Amino acid sequence: MSDLEKLSASIHEFVEDRDWGQFHDPKSLLIALTGEVGEVAELLQWLPADRAAELVRDAPLSGQIRDELADVLIYLIQLAEACGVELVAAATAKLRAAIDRYPASEHRGVAPNRPS
Amino acid sequence: MSDLEKLSASIHEFVEDRDWGQFHDPKSLLIALTGEVGEVAELLQWLPADRAAELVRDAPLSGQIRDELADVLIYLIQLAEACGVELVAAATAKLRAAIDRYPASEHRGVAPNRPS
Amino acid sequence: MSDLEKLSASIHEFVEDRDWGQFHDPKSLLIALTGEVGEVAELLQWLPADRAAELVRDAPLSGQIRDELADVLIYLIQLAEACGVELVAAATAKLRAAIDRYPASEHRGVAPNRPS
Amino acid sequence: MSDLEKLSASIHEFVEDRDWGQFHDPKSLLIALTGEVGEVAELLQWLPADRAAELVRDAPLSGQIRDELADVLIYLIQLAEACGVELVAAATAKLRAAIDRYPASEHRGVAPNRPS
Repeated sequence: MSDLEKLSASIHEFVEDRDWGQFHDPKSLLIALTGEVGEVAELLQWLPADRAAELVRDAPLSGQIRDELADVLIYLIQLAEACGVELVAAATAKLRAAIDRYPASEHRGVAPNRPS
Repeated sequence: MSDLEKLSASIHEFVEDRDWGQFHDPKSLLIALTGEVGEVAELLQWLPADRAAELVRDAPLSGQIRDELADVLIYLIQLAEACGVELVAAATAKLRAAIDRYPASEHRGVAPNRPS
Repeated sequence: MSDLEKLSASIHEFVEDRDWGQFHDPKSLLIALTGEVGEVAELLQWLPADRAAELVRDAPLSGQIRDELADVLIYLIQLAEACGVELVAAATAKLRAAIDRYPASEHRGVAPNRPS
Repeated sequence: MSDLEKLSASIHEFVEDRDWGQFHDPKSLLIALTGEVGEVAELLQWLPADRAAELVRDAPLSGQIRDELADVLIYLIQLAEACGVELVAAATAKLRAAIDRYPASEHRGVAPNRPS
């Protein structure tokens, strides 16, 4: 069992133990995911773009970002489960399609309209 | 190497091959993530809440949701990398904290203000 | 001068007085808008869909939603200004286009794929 | 009647004529708003941060951003109506509170943690 599978199983158990599955319809989970993306946004919003990669590594910001990105993943896993989607398999397939759609030779150094 | 680690490595290689790393500062990746969450939102927005879990399993919607959730994960992985965050480790730690913060006995069947 | 024009002028002055215009490039403002939408999301996420319209009218939730929707508008106005967009004129034109695109006779009671 | 009030009334009539009010519970409208913010995000994501304010003024991008910001406002107005919130009054009150909370003399040139 991979780390992500273990995490997914633990989240599932966490929710079951609290009988929270009743709140976890796809639309509610999508809204919760939106909330967590918003938390990350609030941490990044005023950082100078060209120094952000460096500043996000400094405490206490680094820990806050770590926590909020964790929450995004936790809700993404739950949303995928509620939709019957195997997340890693779906992303692996999507990446394979992007490799074909954006041949490296033609797209080197050019920002794609929408890269995947 | 787990499936997620393989996926992360493949994304990294995909980006490197196209020299797209120059676009992948944390704020741009957060905006790209927002765009993909928006794509999922557009698929779910008008579904009746109480039938959504069932309707998202019907083609062609099921495939569209699979594709957009895949994109959310792909950008989340890239954002985490740009921020120096190990995503699964962070989420595992966050879940452990939530288990302590929300004892099952006290929170059974009660929607948390913010569950994680 | 309409209420919205007065509000926009006051926001502009607020930002000028604090010399915050330097932070208000379009991408940073979009991220700030995302953060505020996330705040609304956190207030709505676990409400039962069919009772939400009623529950959002009860204090203290009603005041919290009022505050967060206010923030969404404040950042939307700033983002529009940063992009050189006249918001109300743009929305009026967009609505006019939607009226043509979705004739009432053909679309009555049918959720549009994307209504505007 | 101000431009925004006229716009709100026109949106209301547009929705009524199509009997779409049945889809417009707060959570669905919040999801639709998220979708439209995502559309703006996709237009801005790969623009260089320091040239974005200039690039968003060039056609065809300028028209696309205008259209998507319009959609954000249209859904924000509908969400506010669904929640019983008077948007401009709420934002005017919120701005007044921000003026008190962030005295210009103390906050000049310093990015606020969360400015409003």
